Amino acid sequence: MAAVEAPPAKQARTDAKTDAKTDAKQEFLKVFERLRDEIVGDELLAGQPESSQQWVKEMMDYNVPLGKLNRGMAVLDVVRSLAGARGHQLSEEEVFRAQALGWCIEFLQAYFLVADDIMDSSITRRGQPCWYRQPKVGMVAINDGIILEACIYRILKKHFSSLPAYVHLLELFHEVTYQTAHGQLLDTTTAPIGTVDLSRYTLPTYMRIVTYKTAFYTFYLPVACGMRLAGITEEAAYKLAEEICVSMGQYFQIQDDYLDCFGDPEVIGKIGTDIQDNKCSWLVVQALQRASDEQKKIIEESYGKDEEAAVQRVKAVYRELGLEGVFKQYEQESYEGLVKTIEGQDLLPQGVFTMLLKKIYKRQK
Amino acid sequence: MAAVEAPPAKQARTDAKTDAKTDAKQEFLKVFERLRDEIVGDELLAGQPESSQQWVKEMMDYNVPLGKLNRGMAVLDVVRSLAGARGHQLSEEEVFRAQALGWCIEFLQAYFLVADDIMDSSITRRGQPCWYRQPKVGMVAINDGIILEACIYRILKKHFSSLPAYVHLLELFHEVTYQTAHGQLLDTTTAPIGTVDLSRYTLPTYMRIVTYKTAFYTFYLPVACGMRLAGITEEAAYKLAEEICVSMGQYFQIQDDYLDCFGDPEVIGKIGTDIQDNKCSWLVVQALQRASDEQKKIIEESYGKDEEAAVQRVKAVYRELGLEGVFKQYEQESYEGLVKTIEGQDLLPQGVFTMLLKKIYKRQK
Repeated sequence: MAAVEAPPAKQARTDAKTDAKTDAKQEFLKVFERLRDEIVGDELLAGQPESSQQWVKEMMDYNVPLGKLNRGMAVLDVVRSLAGARGHQLSEEEVFRAQALGWCIEFLQAYFLVADDIMDSSITRRGQPCWYRQPKVGMVAINDGIILEACIYRILKKHFSSLPAYVHLLELFHEVTYQTAHGQLLDTTTAPIGTVDLSRYTLPTYMRIVTYKTAFYTFYLPVACGMRLAGITEEAAYKLAEEICVSMGQYFQIQDDYLDCFGDPEVIGKIGTDIQDNKCSWLVVQALQRASDEQKKIIEESYGKDEEAAVQRVKAVYRELGLEGVFKQYEQESYEGLVKTIEGQDLLPQGVFTMLLKKIYKRQK
Repeated sequence: MAAVEAPPAKQARTDAKTDAKTDAKQEFLKVFERLRDEIVGDELLAGQPESSQQWVKEMMDYNVPLGKLNRGMAVLDVVRSLAGARGHQLSEEEVFRAQALGWCIEFLQAYFLVADDIMDSSITRRGQPCWYRQPKVGMVAINDGIILEACIYRILKKHFSSLPAYVHLLELFHEVTYQTAHGQLLDTTTAPIGTVDLSRYTLPTYMRIVTYKTAFYTFYLPVACGMRLAGITEEAAYKLAEEICVSMGQYFQIQDDYLDCFGDPEVIGKIGTDIQDNKCSWLVVQALQRASDEQKKIIEESYGKDEEAAVQRVKAVYRELGLEGVFKQYEQESYEGLVKTIEGQDLLPQGVFTMLLKKIYKRQK
């Protein structure tokens, strides 16, 4: 890491920040390897044939650690922020526990993604074929999902069962799993596969899907995990954290929908397909609220079609309706509302939330 | 239920037994309705759209209560047996808890069956099309499985979180879920779909699959649930129960395999297809151990083929090898071994196990 020549000041700061981020990710990945090896070597799997051990190891390596890991790594950020506010320096064990709990979130996500990819007939995930598309896997991926989820509770038992927070952590993961499955159910019943019915794409429906399918596990879960590790027990603090995290999760998903259409594919690393895929996106919801009868007709005829011309027609309507501006305004209002809520409470250190907010505000990818 | 004329004595006894059995099942089913309505009306689902509530209700009704319910009903039997041994009369609440815990087992089984049916491309289950075969369901059944499993933990939280056994019950369901998924994995890696390799069908492999895939959740789980409810905490008692229940589960599955081939379809209510389906059945494992080169060749050529003539050739080899007698001998030895273990211990009342054993010994269906 030592540089031979001192680069210009600004560059150095960027490098240092990038290095710190890379280091944190490396440290986090080391914990994955430890947890994975513990699972493969534990009393249940150690007694199984080599073929089972190999399968589970390969399956975990393929599905768990290859994402951005933002959710998992957020737990340590939250724990650090809470400790910092009371001048506490984290021990090595406390750091490990925060990271291990972060991996539980990543295992939960892996479980959902393996299942979602089958349900959506997806082709690729994180730059590689979806797990169920591997020739030797197929529908066995469903059972692998069950194993991925079960790993959460093995990690919790091994590393957290001696803590007073243990039963709360179990209940937290149960609750968020249930909420997320209900988000998926809402999504399914709103846009059943093979049907197009834009009248179902309303803002309340959209917000509900996003809240259940994404916000709870992406924002509330890491924050609540960190709070449990820090020993916070007041229910009011969890209620408040939920409220803030749900708003943040909604904001995050709306950005995602915006970037899918208006983001730079070079920067976000993929070409958006929400229009072709008939997704209940924030943009189409906003467009339908504002469209003239003529514009509505264009959307109805072109949405959900896998043809470049149809996609362009929908995008043209989005532009006519000034949806980029509508988004910018929402972004600003949402940000200001969040800051106001965060600053207007004294149940939790503001840093817990501002740190998360800073990472997503005006993101380009 | 009152009979106008007194039937012959033997008939009366049979009727009384049947009535008691029917009553117990009716009582048990009433508890399902209560739990289902609680779930549909609880704070999470009550806030969801009507379509979600309807979906979950229908999905539960379709997948949870239509089996034989032996596993679920066994919890109350175990609790009664343990209470009886110390002269304790169960309160209404204790009866309800045992039944609710029994339903958690039935929810767990429903979760596995919904998933297994997709993995095995099954057509029917419990006399109706498999859930995923319903046109409006399809792969969404995977998410329904996630919801079914999550219901276990909602029931446990609502009705058991005030008990000292709560965390043990959570861990018990986590552990058995993990074990069963490993049984499924073993099954998959032993007989990958679309391949035929009889050299993998050995007795140790067979016994391991049966133990993990069936025995833990079918026998150990109801017994351990009952023991937890009765307040038993000694680890040694659970180890012993596991040992006995695993033997019983192996015996149960071997009977199942035997009846699939040699049972009366009129009595068991279905026509066996293990041979056509290339199943790693106890019979083919025993046959391969005993077969001459010529007989092995017949099995290799005919096993896993969906042709009546091929099935009959395999059955002829089974008969030549006297597998019916081999089974009867195994059945006798297994029964005697179990009785010896049950009588040779004083950690748990013998009735807990003899009651279960009585239900399966020499069963015809």
